[in-house]
Amino acid sequence: MVKKPAPDATRRSEKSRRAIYAAALALVGEVGYPKTTVEGIAARAGVGKQTIYRWWGSKADVLLEAFLDLGEQTAREAGQEPYAIPDTGDLAADLKAVLRATVDELLDPRFDVPARALTAEGVVNEQLGREFVAKLLEPQLQLYVDRLRSAQDSGAVRPGIDPRIALELFVSPLAQRWLQRTAPISHAYTDTLIDYALHGLAPR
Amino acid sequence: MVKKPAPDATRRSEKSRRAIYAAALALVGEVGYPKTTVEGIAARAGVGKQTIYRWWGSKADVLLEAFLDLGEQTAREAGQEPYAIPDTGDLAADLKAVLRATVDELLDPRFDVPARALTAEGVVNEQLGREFVAKLLEPQLQLYVDRLRSAQDSGAVRPGIDPRIALELFVSPLAQRWLQRTAPISHAYTDTLIDYALHGLAPR
Repeated sequence: MVKKPAPDATRRSEKSRRAIYAAALALVGEVGYPKTTVEGIAARAGVGKQTIYRWWGSKADVLLEAFLDLGEQTAREAGQEPYAIPDTGDLAADLKAVLRATVDELLDPRFDVPARALTAEGVVNEQLGREFVAKLLEPQLQLYVDRLRSAQDSGAVRPGIDPRIALELFVSPLAQRWLQRTAPISHAYTDTLIDYALHGLAPR
Repeated sequence: MVKKPAPDATRRSEKSRRAIYAAALALVGEVGYPKTTVEGIAARAGVGKQTIYRWWGSKADVLLEAFLDLGEQTAREAGQEPYAIPDTGDLAADLKAVLRATVDELLDPRFDVPARALTAEGVVNEQLGREFVAKLLEPQLQLYVDRLRSAQDSGAVRPGIDPRIALELFVSPLAQRWLQRTAPISHAYTDTLIDYALHGLAPR
């Protein structure tokens, strides 16, 4: 359970919250999820562990919010709306823009190192994996579902296509290259994925 | 380095090799890669650790061969040629058959548990990850490259398509659903992936 701070505490404690997020992300990247503790996060952030327990129920909750915050920050730095996919009417261009920004994020060590540690843990720790997928990954995937539905309405995607499966044709290849380092990732690569996914491999 | 046994040792020691493979896969699934040791594998297999060092240079080498052997076994049990993709001339049917067999393998705990443990370790341990991708995963992906090239020769895949990227449109979604448990996997799901990948999401 993620506890929300009282409104008057928010401003005063903004600096502590930032320090706690940074400490949690750094620690999980360095020692992995099992060895990350609320005590360790508190010590590194320079706060008492009661400060953390006042706002969050567990280390998983701290990390969940730290990742949400990091995603917002990096989107804003890239001049983008966080947790949004543009809808200019040009599906290919919109998807390419979002995947290019995702490549930049995956190549940024601030994201790569902690996200890799947490994802590795989720692969073997089913409960943690399911929680983070439900709260972090799936809401992002649903943005693609919405964008693909809008494309179906405008005729840019075939009506019979299931958007929840369709998005995986371009999202999952990037995820696998990043996670398993099967091959390099780049803007040219994700542009190609979008072209292949939209137009298929078979001749027209 | 993987050491090859002398020919006269092969038959006599077949039982020991099987016991060592089984012990290595069970152990890595139970305790994870970092805590798996050659001593632990030897104890569980009921052999001396020198028996292991006679044939393999490290625990990574034992696991690599254990996975190759497991892949061969499960393919033969499923009545398939191990490490091969059929070429009947019907690209969609051939790819669907291989992906259906892969779904069955991923849902088999004998494969799922050790493969999950090893993949999780490869996500955070770059050297191990790269070694296992190069020796286990990439050779399997190259089989799809060959099959897609053959389809390009016969006109079933557009000539400009890069087969190494194209295969990811159906292989990576299955890998991500399995690894991150983002959604269930089934034969119907992988059939759909092949249909979408071959014909694209945009109207024709």
